Amino acid sequence: MSEYHFPRQDAQFVLDHIVEFPLICDRLGQEELNSGLNDAILEEAARLGSEVLAPLNKIGDQAGAQMVECGVQEAAGFKAAYQQFVENGWPSLAGDPAYGGQGLPKTLSTAVMEIWQSSNMAFSLCPLLTQGAVEAVSEHASDALKKTYLEKMISGEWTATMNLTEPDAGSDLAAIKAKAVPEAGNYKIFGQKIFITWGDHQMTDNVVHLVLARLPDAPAGVRGISLFIVPKFLVNADGSLGARNDVKAVSLEHKLGIHASPTCVMSFGDSDGAVGYLVGEPHTGLACMFTMMNDARQGVGLQGLAVSERAYQHALAYAKERLQGTLRDGSRLAIINHPDVRRMLMLMKSGTQAMRALTYVAASQADNLEVLKTTGSVSDAAICQARLDLYTPIVKGWITEFAQELTSLGVQIHGGMGFIEETGAAQHFRDARILPIYEGTTGIQGLDLVGRKTLADNGQSLFALLDEISCELASLEVGEIFTQELSNAIEAEQSVRDGVDWLLSHKEEAPAIGVNLMMSLGYLCGAWLMLRSAGKAQALSGNTDTDPLFLESKQVSARFYCEHFLPRVKMHLQTMKAGSASMMALEIEQF
Amino acid sequence: MSEYHFPRQDAQFVLDHIVEFPLICDRLGQEELNSGLNDAILEEAARLGSEVLAPLNKIGDQAGAQMVECGVQEAAGFKAAYQQFVENGWPSLAGDPAYGGQGLPKTLSTAVMEIWQSSNMAFSLCPLLTQGAVEAVSEHASDALKKTYLEKMISGEWTATMNLTEPDAGSDLAAIKAKAVPEAGNYKIFGQKIFITWGDHQMTDNVVHLVLARLPDAPAGVRGISLFIVPKFLVNADGSLGARNDVKAVSLEHKLGIHASPTCVMSFGDSDGAVGYLVGEPHTGLACMFTMMNDARQGVGLQGLAVSERAYQHALAYAKERLQGTLRDGSRLAIINHPDVRRMLMLMKSGTQAMRALTYVAASQADNLEVLKTTGSVSDAAICQARLDLYTPIVKGWITEFAQELTSLGVQIHGGMGFIEETGAAQHFRDARILPIYEGTTGIQGLDLVGRKTLADNGQSLFALLDEISCELASLEVGEIFTQELSNAIEAEQSVRDGVDWLLSHKEEAPAIGVNLMMSLGYLCGAWLMLRSAGKAQALSGNTDTDPLFLESKQVSARFYCEHFLPRVKMHLQTMKAGSASMMALEIEQF
Repeated sequence: MSEYHFPRQDAQFVLDHIVEFPLICDRLGQEELNSGLNDAILEEAARLGSEVLAPLNKIGDQAGAQMVECGVQEAAGFKAAYQQFVENGWPSLAGDPAYGGQGLPKTLSTAVMEIWQSSNMAFSLCPLLTQGAVEAVSEHASDALKKTYLEKMISGEWTATMNLTEPDAGSDLAAIKAKAVPEAGNYKIFGQKIFITWGDHQMTDNVVHLVLARLPDAPAGVRGISLFIVPKFLVNADGSLGARNDVKAVSLEHKLGIHASPTCVMSFGDSDGAVGYLVGEPHTGLACMFTMMNDARQGVGLQGLAVSERAYQHALAYAKERLQGTLRDGSRLAIINHPDVRRMLMLMKSGTQAMRALTYVAASQADNLEVLKTTGSVSDAAICQARLDLYTPIVKGWITEFAQELTSLGVQIHGGMGFIEETGAAQHFRDARILPIYEGTTGIQGLDLVGRKTLADNGQSLFALLDEISCELASLEVGEIFTQELSNAIEAEQSVRDGVDWLLSHKEEAPAIGVNLMMSLGYLCGAWLMLRSAGKAQALSGNTDTDPLFLESKQVSARFYCEHFLPRVKMHLQTMKAGSASMMALEIEQF
Repeated sequence: MSEYHFPRQDAQFVLDHIVEFPLICDRLGQEELNSGLNDAILEEAARLGSEVLAPLNKIGDQAGAQMVECGVQEAAGFKAAYQQFVENGWPSLAGDPAYGGQGLPKTLSTAVMEIWQSSNMAFSLCPLLTQGAVEAVSEHASDALKKTYLEKMISGEWTATMNLTEPDAGSDLAAIKAKAVPEAGNYKIFGQKIFITWGDHQMTDNVVHLVLARLPDAPAGVRGISLFIVPKFLVNADGSLGARNDVKAVSLEHKLGIHASPTCVMSFGDSDGAVGYLVGEPHTGLACMFTMMNDARQGVGLQGLAVSERAYQHALAYAKERLQGTLRDGSRLAIINHPDVRRMLMLMKSGTQAMRALTYVAASQADNLEVLKTTGSVSDAAICQARLDLYTPIVKGWITEFAQELTSLGVQIHGGMGFIEETGAAQHFRDARILPIYEGTTGIQGLDLVGRKTLADNGQSLFALLDEISCELASLEVGEIFTQELSNAIEAEQSVRDGVDWLLSHKEEAPAIGVNLMMSLGYLCGAWLMLRSAGKAQALSGNTDTDPLFLESKQVSARFYCEHFLPRVKMHLQTMKAGSASMMALEIEQF
């Protein structure tokens, strides 16, 4: 059994020194968090994660979910764990206090979510998707719908799902065919949805489905999609549960990973139609969906960090134990002492630290936005929102791709044992493989980055990010020992800037080069934040109660990141500038 | 069900124009192969692969192998397929004619082996390992042992295994504990071996185990290991099978992939000792093992090519069928038309082509060596042998790592369907994951490259390879359209050369930098051979009966390779030159 421990020291360092979370709390008027409450929350979450969720991770992988007569039966132990999770108030952490939420900052709830996702990614997908649905309902639904649904979704008493994909409509949402027919002031929903995560289970009394469908008068394409709430059980006026709605899970997928997370084929309206309630205005489903999805995309990026961290801990424990090679005195050597194993561990360690820094920075941007919405100018808030939007495809795209490499290294460090399922290293590798696919593939993230996030504003918000990176690197005090790393990072930033200029003068190349630009930007952001970390660690050395061994390791980790990952920035850009000519040159018959 | 078709056009192009196989046949005195026999052999192998082995690939993945009373039961259909495989004479293709082999060139048997490994990697591991054992027995065993075992191993009537690993001795063979006790002119073997591929099955009457063990007077470490033949059934003087030997499979591993290939825990000497026969001199087991393993390592590299090719064909078929997105006229677009999907397909296409070129070039080196052994000088043969030895860690290390990326792209191209096991794309990804682990991990290949293959001869054979690459690139006639690619490749070659110089003056860094040097060399070799391909394709254009569409696509593929993979050469070298300082800086407590 692999144990999981929240990497408290690194997370705390990122919170305190990279995103300056205490300052955010002050600005949000939540100063009380700084007097020990943040720490207490993280400590409690870490305990639940390690003691309750983590031990279920392998059990869930082996048992999976099953179709039974009443619907989908989740793996043994999951219901009790979920009930404890709800009773302890974890789902409501960042929820709106008007609906029973605790209104805590997004940065904090992100750190807590890292714990859930590392402990048990398959389990924690359920609250992650519910949170996305909460965002969509909060922002777009009528007060009546909010009154009926929001409180129980925020508390976790009910879970929620995102019903987008259909057999012919995956990345191409324009092809959605599910129908919504007006009836008795509401709607009847008909259609089939696939790949619905946690589409059914027995952990809660009700499941709230958010469903994209077309009204009868809908225009073709994405401008004709509307969003509906379709509960598993109808809700009476007094809030009690009524009749079973005409929606059910009809089958489960047999997947490569996240076995404990039921991936359902959902059927709506097999009998007389599933009762649905319109969220927002007709035909604005795409916007509502993006509210839900942008939150989920950041969450999936966080999963990439979380599963990499878990894989790292797993591999590290093995590397400390496994003996191979003998010293002259006859004693045997743990493989962590072999340079190539050390190389792989350092790749995992420095890589997850960079992921964590970027994920928390992106989350803190949401809190900054909250502050600006009340105290800032409209234009400052807009700039902040644009930065948050820009981070989304980087967090989702770069981190989830990066997680493929890091979880694979976790297997490799185990040698032959890594290929044996019993060891558990392979589970993280299998689980991670979904991350660059769901909630918008890496290709879709690339398109989002170059299209909506760059060409749409002529590069303005991307240049603003690069300006910030460039200014910070130019003034960073990391001493002589980082001269080379700093100069490489400055050069890398300049390369990305050139790359964006190239894109702006080669707009027609955008669809072909998105992924390479995104990857280069991700590795650059990682270097920027790791160098910031090195600077902070140096500044803290000697005059602080922070563990000096940790501060030293943080600098080593930053240097290693710059040596091993920073060169990738230029590599991706060089490839990017080759454009699409050879990519698109062949006729289909030539493949 | 995914179909498999041998990529005949590309393989033929590599054989005819990259390795000049017709010339090799002439030099080997096997001119008759050039008059249609080679073609006929490949055609027949392709048919058996597509029609018999490929359909069993998914069946084997789902069924796996099982422990039954008599030992290990392979998946349904495998025995009949194996019998057909043997009856058609496939195992003996490259075998020594003195023992019933067909004595065909290694280059040809490698192309044929590609077919087996693409069709069904789990099945084809069995003949691959038998072939390695044949090499070891041919080179090191007494005539008496050869007479008893070799003919039936070459014919495939009996299969063979490699018994190296023990629970405490994986990469560290010095730790081997299995014992060999002299008795009645032979030996009794005692001990446990793990991870024994195809350690038992019911496809043949006998299984010949090659086992590393220690004699009573053996010195400690790797210089005290001897190699033994331990048959499952003893063999009578007349060649008939005698008593069951005291060796058996005691359990099977539950693995991430290659489910149909039984991975056994083997127990030797549970009763009164397993009868074993010494191969070669006492305490020379390591050398015998390397004969076996070097062959197997090239075979595993070939598996990397083969499974990538299979994954590519799988993804390509899906990309042509799957519709997402709509054109203005209302017709829907196959995803192969989307630039990012095209990018992934081209990565897979050009990547597998580069792998194939290098694999066949390495195989042809073995044939060149045969020629030189009879007609060349001793020093020419030694140079040729050194080149062959140099290729081994590149073929094994680079190709199997590269295969991780390409098979993962195969999943990605399928989108959500790629994560569903039923689709089959995930099998290739799972199967491929063993390749950088078995027969020496990637780390071990890196050590082999920098140690035995570079530092040991002061870089001589590596510089000879770089000289050849450099000369060829300088004189390559690929026309103006390849100016940029050529100049980048020349620059990349110079970077690798600088890297080797750096290594020679930083010998103490060797253990830390092997993998990065190996990867840079692999990508460089790929570019070299792809540019050679582009040149040949240009030269053939217009005055040949080769398909002009193929010749054009070969040039496009070469260009794409240079744009997308060549920049990695410098990236790996830049990282390499950072050395081990940050890698080894942390105390174990700081992880």
